[in-house]
Amino acid sequence: MKNISIGLLLLCGLLTTACATTPQNTVTNTQSSHVPKNIIFLIGDGMGVEHTTAYRYYTDDLTTEAVETTIFDQLLVGMASTYPDDDTVVTDSAASATALSSGVKSYNGAIGVDAHKEPLATVLEKAKQLGKQTAIVVTSQINHATPAAFIAHNESRQNYDQIADNYLSNLINDKPIVDLMFGGGTKYFIRDDRNLVKEFEDYGYQYTDDLQQLDNITALPALGLFAPVGLPFAIDSAQPHRLEPMAQKALSLLSQHNDNGFFMMIEGSQIDWCSHANDVACAMGELDDFAATIKAARDFAQQQGDTLVVVTADHSTGGLSIGGYGQYLWKRDLVHQIHASIETLSKEMIKTNDVVATWNKYIDFALTTEEKQKLLNASKQKDKMLRDALVEVISHRTITGWTSRGHTAGDVQIFAYGVGAEKFAGHLDNTDIAKAIFSFLK
Amino acid sequence: MKNISIGLLLLCGLLTTACATTPQNTVTNTQSSHVPKNIIFLIGDGMGVEHTTAYRYYTDDLTTEAVETTIFDQLLVGMASTYPDDDTVVTDSAASATALSSGVKSYNGAIGVDAHKEPLATVLEKAKQLGKQTAIVVTSQINHATPAAFIAHNESRQNYDQIADNYLSNLINDKPIVDLMFGGGTKYFIRDDRNLVKEFEDYGYQYTDDLQQLDNITALPALGLFAPVGLPFAIDSAQPHRLEPMAQKALSLLSQHNDNGFFMMIEGSQIDWCSHANDVACAMGELDDFAATIKAARDFAQQQGDTLVVVTADHSTGGLSIGGYGQYLWKRDLVHQIHASIETLSKEMIKTNDVVATWNKYIDFALTTEEKQKLLNASKQKDKMLRDALVEVISHRTITGWTSRGHTAGDVQIFAYGVGAEKFAGHLDNTDIAKAIFSFLK
Repeated sequence: MKNISIGLLLLCGLLTTACATTPQNTVTNTQSSHVPKNIIFLIGDGMGVEHTTAYRYYTDDLTTEAVETTIFDQLLVGMASTYPDDDTVVTDSAASATALSSGVKSYNGAIGVDAHKEPLATVLEKAKQLGKQTAIVVTSQINHATPAAFIAHNESRQNYDQIADNYLSNLINDKPIVDLMFGGGTKYFIRDDRNLVKEFEDYGYQYTDDLQQLDNITALPALGLFAPVGLPFAIDSAQPHRLEPMAQKALSLLSQHNDNGFFMMIEGSQIDWCSHANDVACAMGELDDFAATIKAARDFAQQQGDTLVVVTADHSTGGLSIGGYGQYLWKRDLVHQIHASIETLSKEMIKTNDVVATWNKYIDFALTTEEKQKLLNASKQKDKMLRDALVEVISHRTITGWTSRGHTAGDVQIFAYGVGAEKFAGHLDNTDIAKAIFSFLK
Repeated sequence: MKNISIGLLLLCGLLTTACATTPQNTVTNTQSSHVPKNIIFLIGDGMGVEHTTAYRYYTDDLTTEAVETTIFDQLLVGMASTYPDDDTVVTDSAASATALSSGVKSYNGAIGVDAHKEPLATVLEKAKQLGKQTAIVVTSQINHATPAAFIAHNESRQNYDQIADNYLSNLINDKPIVDLMFGGGTKYFIRDDRNLVKEFEDYGYQYTDDLQQLDNITALPALGLFAPVGLPFAIDSAQPHRLEPMAQKALSLLSQHNDNGFFMMIEGSQIDWCSHANDVACAMGELDDFAATIKAARDFAQQQGDTLVVVTADHSTGGLSIGGYGQYLWKRDLVHQIHASIETLSKEMIKTNDVVATWNKYIDFALTTEEKQKLLNASKQKDKMLRDALVEVISHRTITGWTSRGHTAGDVQIFAYGVGAEKFAGHLDNTDIAKAIFSFLK
């Protein structure tokens, strides 16, 4: 027995959080043949190491001496490479989501198809074939690249209508393969040529388009489309957490009749969008909603004891750095004083024709004379010029660095908790994550 | 026995490399009470996640379909936060090295002293107190911030002479505390006011200043100073690996009479310097030497079976990104075609007054007309302007992003192998790394 204890102890050393918080789960975790009944796969789109690190310092309670750990710190187990199936090194969300859904590398733009544009089996399809419930919860449109790569097969992520149509033509046992879909996308699902929402309702799906009325959904299957395309940014929302309540509702619905377990993919979609916009306050808002969602999933797994939670990113976006311009400092206090996205700021500045009033309405620190002039000059040009000027002012003020409006290729982190978490430790390729999930679906 | 096997198997799942390559070490690793006899602590100065990821793609064999894993991938176990003891978030090398040597946060600039400038006990001192042999091997001057924080105590990293003096005044059992020091620094150790090399020789140290004559050193204690300040960049050296042969020689000397084991700190010092210069080819040269050094340490640990190898970085430098400027591509082939540092290029361009000839002498791809004009214009200004122009041309051509000439605050990786490696898994603070090493020194 002594050696067994040492084995468990060591395992606890390697998965400290799981062991520290749920000793009863330790025993479960050491049974390597044990397979999770439920799998919650969370993807932070565009969430690089600098993002989760920035979030730690952003949420740090400055009234205490310690820097508090985040849910990311508590669940970190490994890292993954993300390169696509060509020599570019830098992936897009479609190729990476296809790797994460199928275990196969493909080209940038590919939705659930290989380099020859042939359909690939996905973990969500496999779960459904095994009689599990399936769900996707995102803040983008539900037919955006990441969720699409789990549900559909298309040669290009740009074919949004075709991909939405595929959600109704990719059937298993004559039914759509996803039992719950929450996100945006009425533009693609209620069209002049076709009303896919109506067709889902014909299949028995309950439908709502009101995020405040989630409780109107009483059972699966269910569809919720809460915006024409993506949901508003967290920072621009009256209710800054919208991924978390969607995920909580999904967990509640999936738990109603869960004999065979479920597979759910949850995406913090707009960490990427804020980072494409080089908008640091916007990104922190999305990370806060995503972190709360991971906590909800971890709490569910902790209560259930039969659930795997695995979290990763598809790539990093923006070439974000904490500190920049030669300065050894990040002004997180100023980031906290920004209460609107750059997109909202620039739209309202142009609409009101009053740069300073709009700035002061949403931002708690004042513009310098030089900054004011820069924004005034830019506001006389087209919208893009003003957004660029806002990026420059906010990034320099907060000492936040960006190298790109696109993606970068640094490895991303893997976080895991619960049954099977040990499969994700150390260095993996993104395809290995899907392969590990497939290994549980037998 | 079945449960024990499962425990070992799971542990292997978490430390796949160690288990895959040295099954006999698995048993050793599972004895949590086992303490490594020898500790090799490697620090990649300025080596962020984007650096090790870039190195993977830089060294990838393009004639094979697979992307080959690096020694970094093979040994990855966790990540560490690096913030200093104030609200700046972004650390310098001195504060981080002090955290890594003592387990205590301090201010930027601190060398082995706390926030009140009081001396802190370091892991190297503790090892020496226990009768272990001690060594430091670096490519900077040996009294630079990182090695200094293990050996000396000073309120400022800038006090190079005082720090060098402290190497001879910080005594245990009336002797200097480091048995082997290889690196640069004759400027600080052979001065008009004092010849510290002579004083070390008086203590019985063998001395050499010729890296080609390392074999002239036959026993410890030993001192090797191979440059006035730092060694030349790897990319500018006829022998691009210089950290690795120094480390190999150190391992050979330490192994001669090793009854009590040893503690050795090895620093890839100039990953940081190349990154401060925003010089991607220079950084890849340093990473290649550092990776070879880690491999040598891993091989030693594999052979010995009683050794811990732990590798981390003190912080990331430069805000490096693979890809940038909105482009989803990194031109690693062009990085391979650069055969001199930007420092060397700019010096020689100014000396020869021939920008194009110098470029063509060291770089295998031709300048465009626009690039040529940019460099010609800059070469008429002062040296810094030319270096900035070279950074701009090379970074845009290779699609490499930088946000700063200074440090950034993203978490760094931890890599570990051998006895005690499990202590470094998951998320740690940099002070936790020192605390784990201290836990082995009892």
